[in-house]
Amino acid sequence: MTDITILHARWLITCEDRNQVLENHALVIQNGLIQAILPSDAAKQKFPAAKHELYNHHVLMPGMINSHTHSSMGYFRGLADDLALMDWLNNYIWPAEKKWISNDFVYDASMFAMAEMIRNGVTCFNDMYFFLEATAKAAQTAGLRAHIGMTVIDFPTPWAKSFEEYIEKGLAFYEQYKNNALIKATLAPHAPYTVCDEHLIRIKELADQLHLKINIHLQEAPDEITKSMAEFNMRPLQRLQKIGFLSENVIAIHMTQVIEEDWQILKKYKPQIVHCPQSNMKLASGGCPVTKLQSIGLNVALGTDGAASNNDLNMLGEMRTAAFLAKHITQDPTALSAEETLKLATLNGAKALGIDKVTGSLTVGKSADVIAIDLEQIETQPVYHPVSQIVYAASRQQITDVWVAGKQLLKQRKLLTLDEQEILAKAKAWQEKIAAVQLKQSA
Amino acid sequence: MTDITILHARWLITCEDRNQVLENHALVIQNGLIQAILPSDAAKQKFPAAKHELYNHHVLMPGMINSHTHSSMGYFRGLADDLALMDWLNNYIWPAEKKWISNDFVYDASMFAMAEMIRNGVTCFNDMYFFLEATAKAAQTAGLRAHIGMTVIDFPTPWAKSFEEYIEKGLAFYEQYKNNALIKATLAPHAPYTVCDEHLIRIKELADQLHLKINIHLQEAPDEITKSMAEFNMRPLQRLQKIGFLSENVIAIHMTQVIEEDWQILKKYKPQIVHCPQSNMKLASGGCPVTKLQSIGLNVALGTDGAASNNDLNMLGEMRTAAFLAKHITQDPTALSAEETLKLATLNGAKALGIDKVTGSLTVGKSADVIAIDLEQIETQPVYHPVSQIVYAASRQQITDVWVAGKQLLKQRKLLTLDEQEILAKAKAWQEKIAAVQLKQSA
Repeated sequence: MTDITILHARWLITCEDRNQVLENHALVIQNGLIQAILPSDAAKQKFPAAKHELYNHHVLMPGMINSHTHSSMGYFRGLADDLALMDWLNNYIWPAEKKWISNDFVYDASMFAMAEMIRNGVTCFNDMYFFLEATAKAAQTAGLRAHIGMTVIDFPTPWAKSFEEYIEKGLAFYEQYKNNALIKATLAPHAPYTVCDEHLIRIKELADQLHLKINIHLQEAPDEITKSMAEFNMRPLQRLQKIGFLSENVIAIHMTQVIEEDWQILKKYKPQIVHCPQSNMKLASGGCPVTKLQSIGLNVALGTDGAASNNDLNMLGEMRTAAFLAKHITQDPTALSAEETLKLATLNGAKALGIDKVTGSLTVGKSADVIAIDLEQIETQPVYHPVSQIVYAASRQQITDVWVAGKQLLKQRKLLTLDEQEILAKAKAWQEKIAAVQLKQSA
Repeated sequence: MTDITILHARWLITCEDRNQVLENHALVIQNGLIQAILPSDAAKQKFPAAKHELYNHHVLMPGMINSHTHSSMGYFRGLADDLALMDWLNNYIWPAEKKWISNDFVYDASMFAMAEMIRNGVTCFNDMYFFLEATAKAAQTAGLRAHIGMTVIDFPTPWAKSFEEYIEKGLAFYEQYKNNALIKATLAPHAPYTVCDEHLIRIKELADQLHLKINIHLQEAPDEITKSMAEFNMRPLQRLQKIGFLSENVIAIHMTQVIEEDWQILKKYKPQIVHCPQSNMKLASGGCPVTKLQSIGLNVALGTDGAASNNDLNMLGEMRTAAFLAKHITQDPTALSAEETLKLATLNGAKALGIDKVTGSLTVGKSADVIAIDLEQIETQPVYHPVSQIVYAASRQQITDVWVAGKQLLKQRKLLTLDEQEILAKAKAWQEKIAAVQLKQSA
């Protein structure tokens, strides 16, 4: 029998379909899995020889799942703000990416983002970027669960020059990681406005053949709809339906633009939805109708998007914004309650990524992907309802401890797998290079 | 000559009408005032004998002004969430207040809120509640700048039974504090739907006579408009115009409901506007049209509202939500830039409260109301534009030091004027009492 670790919590929130709050309960971890959940007193009696750790002022809950991000964009945080999506992409982000991205850049920048995500209670992220091996290597060092998108975009980047090269490199990555426990490849055509029908169809065939999820930015902003109507006389969703692309395996990211004819398509194919409220609001893209999508049976998860458009990878903040925005949009303060919001960031993320048998809730038999949040601070007192305190009041620095598959990645706010000072130093070194070129451009 | 303290900052953001960012500058403080702002090197040469403090990774900026709050509601944080405004008020908040508020409650609860505000970089707050002396006493202990509203509401509370008693107690408070440097009385009729015309007119007369600001919740939510149309056949703003209530001395809080006929009135009387985006979104009240109000020449400040409807007193979070919401509402990502947003929380607050000659910016001759924010954390690196990092990425725990009138209230995250452990213990003691009664009610 291998070592047993027992985490005792003041409050334990399971985030199962019903968000149970258990008081003074213990989580028993063995072989990286949740072996039992029982009252603290019983756990002490039953496992006297185990390693007992006390979280007397804490909530224990499942690690959060960041269901959409571009981790390597962390180095572009705050580079360009207060701009429209296409201006921001065409004139700032894409030129910066063309200039800077490389294997080294992606390794350093994604590592930087992972340090942030661990410190922010994220145990799994769903990424879309370039130089996939660099991100995967960093994720293995960090110890995070990572779904890494085989990005395809119909223009050359420093990562690949042609559709064939994107696919070839993507498939090589898929082969390399197909048996990895924590790292999974996904397909990731960037968006309907950047990938042609022929390539989308090829990607859909690959998805069916290899049983992979397909991530795609979809109906993110009004511009995209206008462009699609002009070019195809169809909305992006209609176009994807027409070419047979849609299914429950598609992860539709953003979906802020939904009109009557879209609802029929969504109801029929039930794609996974990833809501990125802070990015959508900051870029004035619109707001995803989360509660209405849920009411027709769709699964909605939550993502931060990249730190260049957010500007952080803070899922607590993202939850708060999601709850606020849902109430604002529906003009109904009961919409997306704290309990429902917490699920977007946990179990619903696992469902979207197809790993809800493995993670997303504190459930016996699932992986021990767990975080501890200290509520013993003025800002989260008094505690009437711990779920309310997490969604509406807690801040990221109250996340004290993080485990993935039973391995501790953050302990009392200290990163255990990554070197914080080295990561900060590298970020500054890159920043100096990036800022120097930007200054030249605007001079 | 009294002692000189010199704060050296990596970045110094003045928040004057133009948001200047000065690099490697020093703030010279003497007698509680800003005596000079000059390059760090020059400050070292000119004042070799002064006390020099280094903030090498920090922004120094003016303390934030929380232009609308009910500080004592901190003890009701998370008591009832995800409810409509009138349900929340009628069935949760007003009954809890009727049961609990007293001199002791307000002293302890407002002290608790002040501890939170200092930790969150607030140096001045504009309060509306009951038992004014208790709040003032706590503010004097805390060392905060406090504008305290002489609340009037047309129903009895544990604080006063009648309009006459509200006014009498309010005026006694005004007399007691009229020469205090940091504590100021304001008038505070709760809202048009809770105070009758006769009382509003009396309050307006008092305001003119004593030169006081008048705080009032105004056009906060659709319900209020419907009710006013039914009872008066007028919108609240029209009604206030008709009784001669409006002027630049009125602080109109919320103003989420603005239609064509309101714009004419607003343009004519130019009341101060306080925007509380998180409370408005959480209660699904609507969204204040900040940029349009600014475009017709109105001053807009920022407030958290009480922690029962927010659920924190975090002005960094409030700024972020204000920027996001403005972009979302106007469908324009350039609306309310980071620089403009920062001003809502600083100089515009001082203008709204009528103290912009004293505070609200780092300006020679103004009070040394200053905060330091440490950007040397992964979440706020790299720094291309410090204003962006503050508005879009920094979190409250990065606020390390706070001064009011040159007196330090927070030093490296430690409260200097308040006892954090005692404040936490009191919050828990009150919570036990409050929760016990709530449980009985729902049983």
